[in-house]
Amino acid sequence: MFTFSCPVSFSITCSSSNGNIQNHGDYRVNINVNGSSCTRRPIKHHTLLNEVDVKEGSTSLSAIQFLENGHISEEKIRQRIPRQKQLVDPYRQGLITERGVGYRQTVVVRSYEVGPDKTATLESLLNLFQETALNHMWMSGLLSNGFGATHGMMRNNLIWVVSRMHVQVDHYPIWGEVIEIDTWVGASGKNGMRRDWVIRSQASGSTYARATSTWVMMNEQTRRLSKMPDEVRDEISPWFIQKQAINEAVPDKIVKLDDKAKHVNSDLKPKRSDLDMNQHVNNVKYVRWMLETIPDKFLERHQLSSIILEYRRECGSSEVVQSLCQPDEDESFANGVQQNLLTNKVLVGGNGRLGSLDINVLTYGYTHLLQTQNEEIVRGRTRWNRKICTGL
Amino acid sequence: MFTFSCPVSFSITCSSSNGNIQNHGDYRVNINVNGSSCTRRPIKHHTLLNEVDVKEGSTSLSAIQFLENGHISEEKIRQRIPRQKQLVDPYRQGLITERGVGYRQTVVVRSYEVGPDKTATLESLLNLFQETALNHMWMSGLLSNGFGATHGMMRNNLIWVVSRMHVQVDHYPIWGEVIEIDTWVGASGKNGMRRDWVIRSQASGSTYARATSTWVMMNEQTRRLSKMPDEVRDEISPWFIQKQAINEAVPDKIVKLDDKAKHVNSDLKPKRSDLDMNQHVNNVKYVRWMLETIPDKFLERHQLSSIILEYRRECGSSEVVQSLCQPDEDESFANGVQQNLLTNKVLVGGNGRLGSLDINVLTYGYTHLLQTQNEEIVRGRTRWNRKICTGL
Repeated sequence: MFTFSCPVSFSITCSSSNGNIQNHGDYRVNINVNGSSCTRRPIKHHTLLNEVDVKEGSTSLSAIQFLENGHISEEKIRQRIPRQKQLVDPYRQGLITERGVGYRQTVVVRSYEVGPDKTATLESLLNLFQETALNHMWMSGLLSNGFGATHGMMRNNLIWVVSRMHVQVDHYPIWGEVIEIDTWVGASGKNGMRRDWVIRSQASGSTYARATSTWVMMNEQTRRLSKMPDEVRDEISPWFIQKQAINEAVPDKIVKLDDKAKHVNSDLKPKRSDLDMNQHVNNVKYVRWMLETIPDKFLERHQLSSIILEYRRECGSSEVVQSLCQPDEDESFANGVQQNLLTNKVLVGGNGRLGSLDINVLTYGYTHLLQTQNEEIVRGRTRWNRKICTGL
Repeated sequence: MFTFSCPVSFSITCSSSNGNIQNHGDYRVNINVNGSSCTRRPIKHHTLLNEVDVKEGSTSLSAIQFLENGHISEEKIRQRIPRQKQLVDPYRQGLITERGVGYRQTVVVRSYEVGPDKTATLESLLNLFQETALNHMWMSGLLSNGFGATHGMMRNNLIWVVSRMHVQVDHYPIWGEVIEIDTWVGASGKNGMRRDWVIRSQASGSTYARATSTWVMMNEQTRRLSKMPDEVRDEISPWFIQKQAINEAVPDKIVKLDDKAKHVNSDLKPKRSDLDMNQHVNNVKYVRWMLETIPDKFLERHQLSSIILEYRRECGSSEVVQSLCQPDEDESFANGVQQNLLTNKVLVGGNGRLGSLDINVLTYGYTHLLQTQNEEIVRGRTRWNRKICTGL
């Protein structure tokens, strides 16, 4: 499981005991972190505001937020998380949609988000899903100081964990392309939340990708799953809508692989740079480990069209991970297609039938498992198309 | 060296021989890639424009660019690279500054660009440097189809290679913070170009980081460095300014490490996901390999304040890399400081002197080398501060 948890915030204790100052002034601020302290240069502020939206000229801080207890959170000053619902955010290029409950963000595909073929990588799409989900929370006014947790969740020591994700990609956006990402949430059973996404071309409106995910709550201390408290349901349920990005009437069941799997990468160790704000291995790293277990020859010639991830357990920074994968059919079949392509004759299925088919409809499947000493972390299923028509 | 090269573009051959159509219509388009072909569904377009800025409603393509030879580049349609200088780009949140020659982009630090401590990673800053450099080119109207190459460079089969980079970070931006990145170019000797960057807090204007880099040109086929052709100089020199982000009167010389280096990571192999649009290992991966060779204990307690990289050679996808690093002094010294901090007494240098110093001024240095079978790829120098005052 990958989690959106709530790291302890870094706070500045203001030496002024007056937490309610309205006039301008200089304050010497003492920073207290882990028992060590150092004195900061004087900082100026304009006025007390609970909403951090003050502009300032020549001084080092633009706006100061004095909390009710007389503390300033430097992090809050710099982050400026809204306490009220915002309809538009010009910096994030985001706006509230769907009659006030959905979120849309316009994004340019960056040069470092694409692979050697100039198209956005699956990792980049997953990163953008995470980013837009958090920005949706950000705009809602519900976001607390943590990594996606609401104020009610913070009061109950709860964090989000994603239990399932399903992504379908029809067209990968390319470097420099402008895309729009829509995201919204809905109910999932009694204690869960569904979050969906759609990626479209900004220019044409064509749908490039869709995704759906399921989220549940976990107690940050006990690491046990939790029911959704009423106060949290009251916060988030007004945002729920029925619409679904992917119709999953009967979701695929993912079989558990064992040692007989055809491809195995062992001894995978998380690096410091793989850890996210939760000190956990980021879910994008999971996907990278999964896909790196597929032979390069296959990856060069195929493009992922869908992935389903079932998260079972968190992965800590000191664990050693094994990645297994098993093709639905032997990849020699998939690689062998290359020769037939030149004559535009394609071998279909495993039955030896030859036909002049649209090669785009040919797909290949892999089943995946990440585990640590036989404890499952994620099960996965991927589907692949041959790279031929990469167009719109 | 990491390169901005020019991959072969993916083109669509339009079956209509009329490359100059002005009226609306449907066209069946035949895609020809590597000898294989498949027929696309009909696409609609509105009008012929050399500037790709047409909006369209319900059809799959928003705008069509017919080039003079009757070819449409699908990539160009989706990328919309300007052929004329643009002063503002609302999607990139970029604008031309410095009396028409500099570039500024406003960026929100994204959730996946920060590390476990919620601050942007060095890798994220390097990615943003690359992105803003390319967007500067994008706005200039000089960008050809390649990875940062101008039209004149394309005609001469030239690509950019960075030979040196120096980054200084005073404050790391945090998740959700809005920053402004300024970048501009200048002359560097007779055949080189300097590119500088400054990152500032959008709210306060405080400088967070500065960087400077040196670029030269390489023949894409021969892989040999090239003089700057006059036509390229004519393109880029009007953009040159004198201003420098970092004053480097006497640049540090980086010694070459040998097998006696204290820390060595061998057998580093690039993965497919480490390759960029040039099919080369991306320079950010180099930095990751360098920093991962430093012991975790040191990394946990220190923050990088500067890095100098001297690129010597490209690294291909099949090479095996070794990362060496050597601390200026034994890290046990750096780790041992922890106990002295509580009394605010800090051991300075290696000479046993004790003093009550501002612990922020204590820095530690490492020398780095990435190599393949004794051929150098990059030399590096890093400086580190203890993580104490991470504030503005």
